[in-house]
Amino acid sequence: MDFFFAPRGVAVIGATPNPLKGGNAILKNLLSGYRGGIYPVNPRYPQIDGLRCYPSVSAVPDPLDLAIIFIPAPLVTSSVEACAARGVAGVMIESSGFAETGPEGAKYQSELRKMAVGKRIRIWGPNCMGLVDVKHDRIFSFMDPRARQREWIPGDVSLVVQSGLLSATFLFDIMSHGLMGVSKVCSVGNKVDVNECDLLEYFIGDPDTRVIGFYLESFADGRRFLEIRRRCTKPIVVLKGGKTRKGAEAALSHTASLAGNHRIIAGALAQSGIIEVRDFRQMTDVCRTLAMMDPPDAPGGRVSVLTFSGGAGIVSTDFIEENGLRLADLSEETRTALRGLYPAWMPVAHPIDLWPAMESHIGKNVDVCGLALEAVLADPGVDAVFLHTFTGNAHIRLDPADLARPVRASGKPIVVWQTGRRDESFSFQQQALRCGIPVFAEIGRAAECLAAVLRGRYRPEPIPAPGVPCGPLPPTIPDLSAFGPGPLDEYVSKALLRACGVPTVPEALITRVEQVEAAAAGLGYPVVMKGLLPGTVHKTESGLVRLGITDGSAALSSFTALMAQMEERGKVLLQKQVSGKVELILGMVRDPQFGPCVMFGLGGIMAELYDDAVFAVAPLNHREALELIGRLRGQKMLNGFRGAEAVNRNEIARILVALGEIGLSHTRIVEIDINPLLVGPEGAAAVDATIVLK
Amino acid sequence: MDFFFAPRGVAVIGATPNPLKGGNAILKNLLSGYRGGIYPVNPRYPQIDGLRCYPSVSAVPDPLDLAIIFIPAPLVTSSVEACAARGVAGVMIESSGFAETGPEGAKYQSELRKMAVGKRIRIWGPNCMGLVDVKHDRIFSFMDPRARQREWIPGDVSLVVQSGLLSATFLFDIMSHGLMGVSKVCSVGNKVDVNECDLLEYFIGDPDTRVIGFYLESFADGRRFLEIRRRCTKPIVVLKGGKTRKGAEAALSHTASLAGNHRIIAGALAQSGIIEVRDFRQMTDVCRTLAMMDPPDAPGGRVSVLTFSGGAGIVSTDFIEENGLRLADLSEETRTALRGLYPAWMPVAHPIDLWPAMESHIGKNVDVCGLALEAVLADPGVDAVFLHTFTGNAHIRLDPADLARPVRASGKPIVVWQTGRRDESFSFQQQALRCGIPVFAEIGRAAECLAAVLRGRYRPEPIPAPGVPCGPLPPTIPDLSAFGPGPLDEYVSKALLRACGVPTVPEALITRVEQVEAAAAGLGYPVVMKGLLPGTVHKTESGLVRLGITDGSAALSSFTALMAQMEERGKVLLQKQVSGKVELILGMVRDPQFGPCVMFGLGGIMAELYDDAVFAVAPLNHREALELIGRLRGQKMLNGFRGAEAVNRNEIARILVALGEIGLSHTRIVEIDINPLLVGPEGAAAVDATIVLK
Repeated sequence: MDFFFAPRGVAVIGATPNPLKGGNAILKNLLSGYRGGIYPVNPRYPQIDGLRCYPSVSAVPDPLDLAIIFIPAPLVTSSVEACAARGVAGVMIESSGFAETGPEGAKYQSELRKMAVGKRIRIWGPNCMGLVDVKHDRIFSFMDPRARQREWIPGDVSLVVQSGLLSATFLFDIMSHGLMGVSKVCSVGNKVDVNECDLLEYFIGDPDTRVIGFYLESFADGRRFLEIRRRCTKPIVVLKGGKTRKGAEAALSHTASLAGNHRIIAGALAQSGIIEVRDFRQMTDVCRTLAMMDPPDAPGGRVSVLTFSGGAGIVSTDFIEENGLRLADLSEETRTALRGLYPAWMPVAHPIDLWPAMESHIGKNVDVCGLALEAVLADPGVDAVFLHTFTGNAHIRLDPADLARPVRASGKPIVVWQTGRRDESFSFQQQALRCGIPVFAEIGRAAECLAAVLRGRYRPEPIPAPGVPCGPLPPTIPDLSAFGPGPLDEYVSKALLRACGVPTVPEALITRVEQVEAAAAGLGYPVVMKGLLPGTVHKTESGLVRLGITDGSAALSSFTALMAQMEERGKVLLQKQVSGKVELILGMVRDPQFGPCVMFGLGGIMAELYDDAVFAVAPLNHREALELIGRLRGQKMLNGFRGAEAVNRNEIARILVALGEIGLSHTRIVEIDINPLLVGPEGAAAVDATIVLK
Repeated sequence: MDFFFAPRGVAVIGATPNPLKGGNAILKNLLSGYRGGIYPVNPRYPQIDGLRCYPSVSAVPDPLDLAIIFIPAPLVTSSVEACAARGVAGVMIESSGFAETGPEGAKYQSELRKMAVGKRIRIWGPNCMGLVDVKHDRIFSFMDPRARQREWIPGDVSLVVQSGLLSATFLFDIMSHGLMGVSKVCSVGNKVDVNECDLLEYFIGDPDTRVIGFYLESFADGRRFLEIRRRCTKPIVVLKGGKTRKGAEAALSHTASLAGNHRIIAGALAQSGIIEVRDFRQMTDVCRTLAMMDPPDAPGGRVSVLTFSGGAGIVSTDFIEENGLRLADLSEETRTALRGLYPAWMPVAHPIDLWPAMESHIGKNVDVCGLALEAVLADPGVDAVFLHTFTGNAHIRLDPADLARPVRASGKPIVVWQTGRRDESFSFQQQALRCGIPVFAEIGRAAECLAAVLRGRYRPEPIPAPGVPCGPLPPTIPDLSAFGPGPLDEYVSKALLRACGVPTVPEALITRVEQVEAAAAGLGYPVVMKGLLPGTVHKTESGLVRLGITDGSAALSSFTALMAQMEERGKVLLQKQVSGKVELILGMVRDPQFGPCVMFGLGGIMAELYDDAVFAVAPLNHREALELIGRLRGQKMLNGFRGAEAVNRNEIARILVALGEIGLSHTRIVEIDINPLLVGPEGAAAVDATIVLK
């Protein structure tokens, strides 16, 4: 991908001297910073803006790695062909008029897709703004050349934006507001070839990139994205636009109906330690904080709040708790140090209200805030600091450089909430950015960004991949090829699950009345009988389930009734009746973008009623499965709710890992639904299950 | 309260010529705008800053309505006494050193509280920044006199801030960032006398105030606040700091343990149509939007999105849906009008991406955005517009005044999301503020503020108070005076509830074995038996509940066993066993700030597991009770979940209203817990209930 980012020679196909056209803007932008050869291509002009213009790309001299194409969509394919023939490594198609416009554009786009597969050329775009490299002053884009100005802030955050104009406006917004230093902004458009996976892979090795932010409307290849992520130790932030639920209604199983596109994406991101955000400024805020602040070596969420206002301290504490952090308990040493700064009447409390201390030192040359900051940074019970400042007050003078020194020495993260006059605030914020101190205008956002640093899931070594997936099914269970598409019955479904390590309730399949009593006695009363009728998935709703059978005569009459009800076309599944444990739903669903995904939720009505089901992409390892369980909102049900014993999370995790491996190994299985799985302090058992084949 | 806001004459007790002191700042601030008599009071100086200085307040000539006090806390009480003796109507105590500092300060504060009750003088503060009236240029505060500058923006929002320094910093932050026009900012500090209720009452009649925002750490008198709110048709926004759960653990009943301080506050605010916010900038954003935009006459949430970026359109749609609004279906007329603006290849979609239309008109004098805006404003299927703009792009030129004209003519609300260069953005935002168009930097915040306008619960006529609360209990039920403090048993509790209109399951209290069979047959099998043992609230956990008794012999043996288990000290409650309906929890709890509050949640474990219980303050009327039910997150359980019949919400609402009236009428009752109430399509019945007396 280096030929996109640091090409030796760039041709501009569609270059023009008309300053109102993008083909001119691309040239001007190249001239403003790019140091290699710049080659306008347009048969109508001998030269443009003082550069020699070439009639075709084949006439351009070496070296030439990249061609930026900005000509009408119908002409693009042949132009890319010419580039491939010329040996150009990559083209960046910035023209629009492709799949986003309708069937004709889609046709042009599919021609491009074929070329990307067939030829030795990489295609970036179409329908995009190209690439801006702020650190190396390379602008491969038709964005307004006048827009680049003195506010250009080189930094460590690279962005990938699947929306053309947005990438440019976003960049200027960020830069001119002094919000964030940027390394590269990549506008990938329709992603006919180069997509977020390629760019993520590139940024892993890019020394100029510390944090990667993505705005995506779709995942080109969700599985590959996650696989690359496992090799990346840099923080990743994703804003996914379009949280629809398309396709969820038509699904057969409960698992699939709970999925919905965004639930799976959210699960995949959380599983991978990728931070999901919802808005553009929020994305900037999280990215810039992660670029400036390293997480502490040991995980911890104990925050000290230094404020000039009791009210702001209280609201900060609310947000700290809401973000899963907590107010630190200050040590006696820290309290003593603070007491020295306060007037006698003022008790030391936490949040630390510095105003009375500052007020009592007005006119004296005492850096109250600096001394208090050093005291809390030195406290071993403090993992991070949330500092407030009011810029423009004569008595609150904070110099970002003075703050940065002790903060850097302590290795502890800090965030600053700032109010105050506009100009002074802007200047403070710009200085702070240079000193690596993140400043915020909203308390909630500051707390959220601090939490992102302190959680720091992106920091440890790459997440280990799980073990070898389970192999072909053992010969004791039915061969799947014997079954057509659609749901397998409960008996076959559970036999398959058992073979793959999922425990089930003791059960027996009976077809003749003579088998009933011995089988029931063998399992032990009370028992349950279920009628298995081909084509019927919802047994309870169809009246095919008999609970609480306590003796032989009841068993016989239930059997006879069920068989009659099924008009002798079905079989009866006899099960030991179990109860008194926690009911869960576990499942597997095959997502078009992420492949096999496992699902976990509480049984009964809760997953549906409270929209509480969590997903992870297979393969997942045991630790990821435990984390998946830990993401369920209703998880206190597992902790020994209302005096019950806590259930065995490890056993649930083991089953979730197994479900993922079944999904990976058996591609005909499109859905698995275990509903319920009963689980207690020791073990678990699938009581009902359905597997759906394609 | 007019003597605080528009006093005829102001004395400054503690005036000083030392420019580092607050007593000097107060004078300077008064001189900068206040037009009445200004009287420094300090025996040490004959004059200060060119004004004659008085040795005591008694020496000050008439008229004198207000004294601002800024002297050490130990001297304040006698100073207030002197003011009262002098006939001053109000004092504003801006000194600190009171309850916020410890026992000695608390003593001074309680002296002040006694004076406020005993004397004919109103006390504002102490420990506050006083009052700033931006529209009339009155600054009754020790805030930094240099801080007031050209950015002063008079407007329609008044703020009440229970935190001293915050009120001043907040004001400068808002003003210098050009965020919001302000009418009055009131810093009320320790609220020894004047509190948020007095100010809310004042602002109802204040012609300079359209929207009222409160930052509160406590409610001085929650009930009074809500009563005043019922007379106020202006929008109210509240940020409540300190969302602790203190005291919830010790409660006896489930209702009380679910309460927690913040849950009740959130319920009270929602019930009253008060908008709750969580952060300071958010408060500004909501207040300024409500001050600029009127809600539509008919409720509606159909929003049209006009953007220059497909990506921003998608993210906006996500936020619109998340805020309970939806993307409007554009009419055929609107689509035709838009088609005329687009190049031929571009299909008309919604969100409306204006960029291709703008691009195709570059160099021509066509106001693409204005024409599109007029088209959607004219569409009867559009209730509001969400417009995006990029300030600083040469091709996107929007003049706020041009936008405002058609918007005002249509009467439909609009919000603008702006990205772009800092200076141009600021200037656009300032112009827009003058034109009454709210501009935002975050999509999510813009959508949230638009939703606040469109919901517009604050607009209709004052909420009617409910009818006459229920009177004394009828003679058929036990006299409460016969019982000591603590829980009443289930039988007595339900008898009382029945008498007040709460339906219960058919039941009979039996003490002798001869009564059993006739009573059970009278109710009809199956029946339930519960042992009522004095002092035992949790019957199930104590093994005192027998379910599913289906015949006389089982009834006899259950009775005998229960009586033996209670060692003949208890009674047995016989009930008809009912099932198959939706289980709910209803309750009443007496809150120290809000008085009797009713609670509503789903039965079983869900209220607790998903933290889903909602509260409202009594009295509540039928409509408020229905709204309370509608605030439950898990309410789809009531709609005929999974094929069941929908339950009767009116019957639940009727019981909730009754519970509130019981709480108001019987002050010895501190808690009521109906758990469960079974409810179906027709009626409801309390199956178990406990009333706790104080």
